[in-house]
Amino acid sequence: MSETRSGRRSGGRAGRQALRASTAVDRVPFLTRTMAPFEVLSAEGLELIEHNADTLLEQVGIEFRDSPEALALLRDAGADVDGERVRFPRGMCRQIVQATAPRTFTQVARNPANNVEIGGMNTVFAPAYGSPFVSDLDNGRRYGTIEDFRNFVKLAYVSPYLHHSGGTVCEPVDLPVNKRHYDMVYAHLRYSDKPFMGSVTHPERAEDTVEMARIVFGADFMEEHTVILSLINANSPMVWDSTMLGAARAYARANQAVLMTPFILAGAMSPATVAGTVTQTLAEALSGMTYVQLVRPGAPVVLGSFASSLSMQSGAPTFGTPEPALVLYAMAALARRLGVPFRSGGALTASKLADAQAAYESTNTMQPTVLGGVNFVLHAAGWLEGGLTMGYEKFVLDHDQLGMWHAFARGVDLSENGQAIDALLTNEPGTHFLGHPHTLANFETAFYRSPVADNSSFEQWSLEGGIESARRANPIWKRMLAEYEPPPIDDAIDEELREWIERRKASFPDSNV
Amino acid sequence: MSETRSGRRSGGRAGRQALRASTAVDRVPFLTRTMAPFEVLSAEGLELIEHNADTLLEQVGIEFRDSPEALALLRDAGADVDGERVRFPRGMCRQIVQATAPRTFTQVARNPANNVEIGGMNTVFAPAYGSPFVSDLDNGRRYGTIEDFRNFVKLAYVSPYLHHSGGTVCEPVDLPVNKRHYDMVYAHLRYSDKPFMGSVTHPERAEDTVEMARIVFGADFMEEHTVILSLINANSPMVWDSTMLGAARAYARANQAVLMTPFILAGAMSPATVAGTVTQTLAEALSGMTYVQLVRPGAPVVLGSFASSLSMQSGAPTFGTPEPALVLYAMAALARRLGVPFRSGGALTASKLADAQAAYESTNTMQPTVLGGVNFVLHAAGWLEGGLTMGYEKFVLDHDQLGMWHAFARGVDLSENGQAIDALLTNEPGTHFLGHPHTLANFETAFYRSPVADNSSFEQWSLEGGIESARRANPIWKRMLAEYEPPPIDDAIDEELREWIERRKASFPDSNV
Repeated sequence: MSETRSGRRSGGRAGRQALRASTAVDRVPFLTRTMAPFEVLSAEGLELIEHNADTLLEQVGIEFRDSPEALALLRDAGADVDGERVRFPRGMCRQIVQATAPRTFTQVARNPANNVEIGGMNTVFAPAYGSPFVSDLDNGRRYGTIEDFRNFVKLAYVSPYLHHSGGTVCEPVDLPVNKRHYDMVYAHLRYSDKPFMGSVTHPERAEDTVEMARIVFGADFMEEHTVILSLINANSPMVWDSTMLGAARAYARANQAVLMTPFILAGAMSPATVAGTVTQTLAEALSGMTYVQLVRPGAPVVLGSFASSLSMQSGAPTFGTPEPALVLYAMAALARRLGVPFRSGGALTASKLADAQAAYESTNTMQPTVLGGVNFVLHAAGWLEGGLTMGYEKFVLDHDQLGMWHAFARGVDLSENGQAIDALLTNEPGTHFLGHPHTLANFETAFYRSPVADNSSFEQWSLEGGIESARRANPIWKRMLAEYEPPPIDDAIDEELREWIERRKASFPDSNV
Repeated sequence: MSETRSGRRSGGRAGRQALRASTAVDRVPFLTRTMAPFEVLSAEGLELIEHNADTLLEQVGIEFRDSPEALALLRDAGADVDGERVRFPRGMCRQIVQATAPRTFTQVARNPANNVEIGGMNTVFAPAYGSPFVSDLDNGRRYGTIEDFRNFVKLAYVSPYLHHSGGTVCEPVDLPVNKRHYDMVYAHLRYSDKPFMGSVTHPERAEDTVEMARIVFGADFMEEHTVILSLINANSPMVWDSTMLGAARAYARANQAVLMTPFILAGAMSPATVAGTVTQTLAEALSGMTYVQLVRPGAPVVLGSFASSLSMQSGAPTFGTPEPALVLYAMAALARRLGVPFRSGGALTASKLADAQAAYESTNTMQPTVLGGVNFVLHAAGWLEGGLTMGYEKFVLDHDQLGMWHAFARGVDLSENGQAIDALLTNEPGTHFLGHPHTLANFETAFYRSPVADNSSFEQWSLEGGIESARRANPIWKRMLAEYEPPPIDDAIDEELREWIERRKASFPDSNV
């Protein structure tokens, strides 16, 4: 046992050092935006929202359900606890969060070259999360399996534009509910070396995730470093449930990061206005972040916001519409004022396939995501059908868009070469620039090159079959998977991980709860 | 003849008065944005670009070809004219433009309820312009006809989200080149009562456009008011040709507005960098606007920018990519600094059909269009295939997006109802808002309602045929055309227009030049 423990630690470190040398996969670092974010509210407007959120926390409060430990912590910190209802004196949450929550933090990856900095002017892209179904053009829509899960881990690993392996890239429905997290976390740790997300479906599964990470990274290392980021959703309106609180507690205690995210279908789970939805989101997130800071002051925490507007006619959630974009911009500004990293956005759509609707809607969310200054972008690639389906072709199309954002975020190059004044002054009117030395010097890197857009003539395109873009994306994900090579891992660590998982799986019966 | 002339004037006025009472078509006024534009360059960066543009105009200059009158005007104003090459002392163009060009102007429509204000915080949407082909899902891609032209005029008229009838909504290829402008301008004047664009393919056709407008609006009225807006493209790099200059002169002399627009495929018609392309665009536009202000000081003029990045591999123009978005944001800021209205943007794509590529690319341009603060948006609906095709289904999908921009541009409602604080304070944690009086009171208008997005369940969508979004758009344009009713027009004016056209058409032979 002690050998194993010591092997765990030094193996972890040795593994990390070995991997430092390896850069098998093309990668682009996370985005560091160079432009001030787009703002939809004035400072006065934002103050009004903050005031209203404080009023809501003070007068109505929020429920922390089945969590006596949370209630005790909150009471001790000065909240008014009445049963499970917790009311906060004005400013209390803000004060606690601002006192200890980091403005920005590093999530360490198995390959340190893939570490991400979450907060500030940085933007990190992660794949879509949580869908029970997957779809591709060959086999249509079907329940996700662990094979699909591994495929999406591999695709995100291969993509130079996804900085993160994500979490539940799809539900592996072929595995028992109470054990599938072992295979999911193992897939992230083994088939990728980018940062990843942990299980949140039960506090024990969160603890399992932490244990598995300790085998890879070493327990001491994790006391000082964050290697897991996990998604904690509020049960809006104004409820935190014990599953989510328990998972948040497990991670925070281990100094691992959580995204405290109200998931809101506006009109049902919040008032049917932008300002009302923003107010409630801020109140819920503040209370959740406060809890995390009380569990472990300084534990990394991200203010999350997921808002969709409900179709007030059919009751269905809608995506890519103007009101959630306004919510996103406003919440991003509120997170900046609070001084914490912000999670929102993604390539969201209600469409069932990667058609024009999917692309309009996805882009209508991704544009605010980047221009508004989101720090951690879950659902940046693959999302379909309101999150019920992870699409292979959609993933390819979205990932191409993420590539474009890298070029955009660099901003306008005002270097001498960028200004091109010599080119302008040596080119005669009416003479094209194609053969100019400046053009030839910039030829390779001048403009973003899409792997999937078709820019050829109608005639050429027709000759090639007149294929629409989702169909063109189909061979691309197949090629990405075919060319995938797993990142190296220390054999001892891999063996320890596998043995640990085997022991845990054998220690209790399968269940689908 | 004199009766006709007098009838022309009073008929015009009477017609306008009669129409003031009519509001047959649902309409939404042009956008008045409430948020500061997104900026990609600092003031120092913009100054550097302005400095470089002045250097380009001073050292290389620009050619005004086959236009002795332009050369004489520019020489008299202080430019250095050498053959057809015109070099400008530093600051000269800026000084002339700022002295007399209006910061904002009204384009009067046949129905004054449809007048648009071009400049400032306003954004006006016009359909795509200039395609020789049209396409729809029933008949595929084919040359445009005058029937297609009239259809798109009718669709833009029926759409509450297009503020403008546009110009060459498609080329009516079934009509002779030298006479089709009569039918095009007539279609705008007769089948719509929104503002429109004039012919620019020959100076005489511009004069014909002005004559036709005088029949409808009255010659005196047009001396004081702008009723035509026309698109003048530079022949980049650094050339204005006599056709475009002649058309610009005809309109400016008549106090009608022109969009002085460098049309640039970056890498071929400008250097292969964003800053180089912006510098050249500014220099070209400044010289063109200067000419217009010398023709008639105070004539309305719009700084235009159309930039696509060339695929440096295939030589094809690409759309919706990051570099042209940066050009757009930078040019919008430069136009604001100059103090003139700005034209750019649109729903641009290289795709041959309304697929995901078309929607990603279109949205990637429309987002900067609105967030960057474009004042006049040509190509806001229908554009396909790099502008070679006007798509019926694409028009419907784009127009839905324009509807969303109206909701977005209003910004966050911070009224008492918008804040929804009463709703938040009277709702119990865990209780949904669907039945709350505040929700019921806001039910109808809470969120933008798309006529074409499908938000239903996978099962419902499958039962209804599993139809992708372009296919759903097909019956919508048919219904819009079926429900179209022409706006009223004074019979005497209509007769005079028709007779005038007949006489003009009969006065010279058909030609396809």
